[in-house]
Amino acid sequence: MDFLSDFLTLFLGKLQSPTLGFLIGGMVVAAVNSRLQIPDSIYKFIVFMLLIKVGLSGGIAIRNSNLAEMLLPAVFAMVVGILIVFIGRYTLAKLPNVKIVDAIATAGLFGAVSGSTLAAALTLMETEGIQYEPWAAALYPFMDIPALVTAIVLASVYLSKRRSNAEEVLSKQEYLSKQPVAAGGYPSKQEYLSEQSITAGGYPRRQSGTAGKRVKIWPIVKESLQGSALSALLLGLALGVLTQPETVYESFFSPLFRGLLSILMLVMGMEATARIGELRKVGQWYALYAFFAPLLHGFIAFGFGMIAHMITGFSLGGVVILAVIASSSSDISGPPTLRAGIPSANPSAYIGSSTAVGTPVALALGIPLYIGLAQVLMGS
Amino acid sequence: MDFLSDFLTLFLGKLQSPTLGFLIGGMVVAAVNSRLQIPDSIYKFIVFMLLIKVGLSGGIAIRNSNLAEMLLPAVFAMVVGILIVFIGRYTLAKLPNVKIVDAIATAGLFGAVSGSTLAAALTLMETEGIQYEPWAAALYPFMDIPALVTAIVLASVYLSKRRSNAEEVLSKQEYLSKQPVAAGGYPSKQEYLSEQSITAGGYPRRQSGTAGKRVKIWPIVKESLQGSALSALLLGLALGVLTQPETVYESFFSPLFRGLLSILMLVMGMEATARIGELRKVGQWYALYAFFAPLLHGFIAFGFGMIAHMITGFSLGGVVILAVIASSSSDISGPPTLRAGIPSANPSAYIGSSTAVGTPVALALGIPLYIGLAQVLMGS
Amino acid sequence: MDFLSDFLTLFLGKLQSPTLGFLIGGMVVAAVNSRLQIPDSIYKFIVFMLLIKVGLSGGIAIRNSNLAEMLLPAVFAMVVGILIVFIGRYTLAKLPNVKIVDAIATAGLFGAVSGSTLAAALTLMETEGIQYEPWAAALYPFMDIPALVTAIVLASVYLSKRRSNAEEVLSKQEYLSKQPVAAGGYPSKQEYLSEQSITAGGYPRRQSGTAGKRVKIWPIVKESLQGSALSALLLGLALGVLTQPETVYESFFSPLFRGLLSILMLVMGMEATARIGELRKVGQWYALYAFFAPLLHGFIAFGFGMIAHMITGFSLGGVVILAVIASSSSDISGPPTLRAGIPSANPSAYIGSSTAVGTPVALALGIPLYIGLAQVLMGS
Repeated sequence: MDFLSDFLTLFLGKLQSPTLGFLIGGMVVAAVNSRLQIPDSIYKFIVFMLLIKVGLSGGIAIRNSNLAEMLLPAVFAMVVGILIVFIGRYTLAKLPNVKIVDAIATAGLFGAVSGSTLAAALTLMETEGIQYEPWAAALYPFMDIPALVTAIVLASVYLSKRRSNAEEVLSKQEYLSKQPVAAGGYPSKQEYLSEQSITAGGYPRRQSGTAGKRVKIWPIVKESLQGSALSALLLGLALGVLTQPETVYESFFSPLFRGLLSILMLVMGMEATARIGELRKVGQWYALYAFFAPLLHGFIAFGFGMIAHMITGFSLGGVVILAVIASSSSDISGPPTLRAGIPSANPSAYIGSSTAVGTPVALALGIPLYIGLAQVLMGS
Repeated sequence: MDFLSDFLTLFLGKLQSPTLGFLIGGMVVAAVNSRLQIPDSIYKFIVFMLLIKVGLSGGIAIRNSNLAEMLLPAVFAMVVGILIVFIGRYTLAKLPNVKIVDAIATAGLFGAVSGSTLAAALTLMETEGIQYEPWAAALYPFMDIPALVTAIVLASVYLSKRRSNAEEVLSKQEYLSKQPVAAGGYPSKQEYLSEQSITAGGYPRRQSGTAGKRVKIWPIVKESLQGSALSALLLGLALGVLTQPETVYESFFSPLFRGLLSILMLVMGMEATARIGELRKVGQWYALYAFFAPLLHGFIAFGFGMIAHMITGFSLGGVVILAVIASSSSDISGPPTLRAGIPSANPSAYIGSSTAVGTPVALALGIPLYIGLAQVLMGS
Repeated sequence: MDFLSDFLTLFLGKLQSPTLGFLIGGMVVAAVNSRLQIPDSIYKFIVFMLLIKVGLSGGIAIRNSNLAEMLLPAVFAMVVGILIVFIGRYTLAKLPNVKIVDAIATAGLFGAVSGSTLAAALTLMETEGIQYEPWAAALYPFMDIPALVTAIVLASVYLSKRRSNAEEVLSKQEYLSKQPVAAGGYPSKQEYLSEQSITAGGYPRRQSGTAGKRVKIWPIVKESLQGSALSALLLGLALGVLTQPETVYESFFSPLFRGLLSILMLVMGMEATARIGELRKVGQWYALYAFFAPLLHGFIAFGFGMIAHMITGFSLGGVVILAVIASSSSDISGPPTLRAGIPSANPSAYIGSSTAVGTPVALALGIPLYIGLAQVLMGS
């Protein structure tokens, strides 16, 4: 019962956090038909600022780490980050009525890392006297950024395949009857157009006759990396690794982050009102995923961590940290990245799953579980 | 003569304040035909930032107060805030050649509260050893926000009535002669259009045949509250009361406030150049109002405070605070709110009245008056 | 050899500075065809923010100085700032294939002052125990702002003359053959149009028949001063001198400066990719100029400083400071000003010259030279 009361306390506390407060505020603003608006150019710039900050902070963390020593755990962090997105792609996305882009975005958010969950774990580990390598906390960008990149690329591949299929069907239908495509599993026109926009960069429309089921993957990956979201993220990462942006990071990007995120949340809330209805039939699947996924991800990472423990002597404390960052889902770096990288995904799905269920589960259930497991293994 | 020299010192000091400096700078920039411009989307975002900050700071102050204990003074603060706007509506706005929207906006600014005037009073009261409830300073949002909301709603009602009359007259004239309306008391086309914009949200154009003198008030109030200015203000207020936005407020909205306000002042100055001529014939009325209104408002609030003193034992120091916040006119929260909420009002009118006359009077004459009055009552 | 190793260390260190990092980052982003963009309105606002900050900081420095005492050195600083631009105009700009607007902009940047070079000199002088007037560091805005203004005005005059000639030639050609102008020394169409934009404010197109070689200078100077770049700079300067903007400067304009500059650098880098090819044939001239100009400028200023030393007793330490600020080239105030004031100049030319060669030369060679010279003169 302790768990349940902890869980509820955390859940209610989360509802009072300004991040979620601005999201709900945006929903209310839209629901009462307010004419409040954030200009589009401001919105784009805010997304840019957030993404470059996420990249910079990851890059600085990587530059300040001893890469040789942390090589194996870092590779494992990357593997786990990518794996988490694929797990979501083949579990959540396969559940009835769940939209595949929404599921991929949610999996990306659960692959990304929450700094506050990590901080909570570090505090608890200190109390319990569990030792870990000083660089272990710097493993997070190795999981965070690959997970987000994987999610955006997977979504692009999926949308590209679907469009290619739709065109093929369309061309057949046009040939037969020239009737518009509307029913069945195809997206509505509006949605179809908005999904197109993420890959509308400039590669040639393929001839519908030659399309078939095969979609070339690499052009889509390249296309995704050239998109404004991943460009900003990777630019920040590269600047963080290769230059010394600490002064500008600490005087500008970092202090503005929290505030700009709150405004992004407001915008996302304003959009969410129109789209929350989409989730009515599938809310239970998201709740189910958001409850079990953090625990599963943590155990997978714990397993990988134990392999590193046996091969390179990676500490058990480090194993716990790896499990915690896998278990956590991002409330900070993820939303702006996914919003810009997968614009057709419904933010209510991924933010709701993470904030309302995933994070409380990781905090109240995941952390004690992995710490307990490590203590049992230490004693053995 | 002490008062006059104090007054002149304060007046000259005010002219050197950066807020007014940027306003005058904007006027000069426009006067010399510079091509300097602040992009429109930036301007809108700055207004949003300022309004949400004003709302947040009010909301946080309210959440941190003991509402039960301060109930009666808080209600009185609201009543005084609303009353001040109505007083302006039926005094200043009735003077010859004074434009009614300008007068309503000015009254709104005199109803809103100046934090620096309040701080000056608190400092002086400490020197004089006057006791007051620790929550008394938190009364200010209860006066500030209702005054601004009232001013915006009153202006909407007035403009809506005038438009309705104009349409009626227009339809009659059309019937008679199809001549354009240009002369007389009707606004010029430009002005008429810009005034329409604030209520152009989407309620149906009424049939000119059925309009008559009656304008329904509630749709206009609802319309005003849905406007971007009051939406942002009330959103900030709600977030301040219901969530815990302190971190984001202190790291983002509050530190940026002063700077963003200076840029807003610059924009308002650039616009003011074109409109300052409008005030040539009526400057003396604004000076008259700005001299006497702070004192009158303070005495009214002092009266209400004394009622609370007799009913609930509200301290005499608290009564002075209530009088001071009524006497002060906002140089911070007011201008962005009024600029966005009553776009057709002339900023030169309300900012000039408050900064050049109202605030020095409240500081140099109002504060000593109310403190002296309280000390006489204490001695009795 | 000490100098060479110092020089290389400084050169490599500069490449890691975030300012240059963002510039190179922008070039890479553009080179890989990323769709990353900074909205135009944001870009314009960033330029405004940077320019007003440069003006404010100069203005505050001037207001806090004892103008009577520093009159002669201040006048000499202005003279040197203006002279540096004219030197560049008649040396660098005359070299084969060097574009004249690029050369003028580069000369403007070398006339402007680098705060970090000045700080390095002050530190070294303290170590060496060289005395100087406390106000000597405040001489920098007297050189910085005149140099930038002179460069922008010279560029306007040049472009205006060229356009006038082009029109004359055009009208003759039209008369003869109606063939389009493309070959020879005339700018390409694209470039021609972009250059026109800086003076397209609104003065009447002159009749091509009456144009001739004569271009009136004062309307162009006035036009330049009314442009958004110099308006913002001079507005900031005036506000810094006449009001007390310290609070808003320290809480807003100054802390945001470094971050906004990094974003401007990113944008300039994105543009530079397309234009770096222009420099292939003339890179050696820029390297030559950037190596010798800082030393020459320093010696000229040292000479003027010695005149002040003999007339008013200006200290030899002050003379060194005057030489150092002449020797330094701006990596901070200059780029945004020149970008906005001379939009047709190639940023790769002036930023590359200053950052890659000019600043290391001033630091590693200039400062020790002027200090040594002063010490020799002291001993004599």
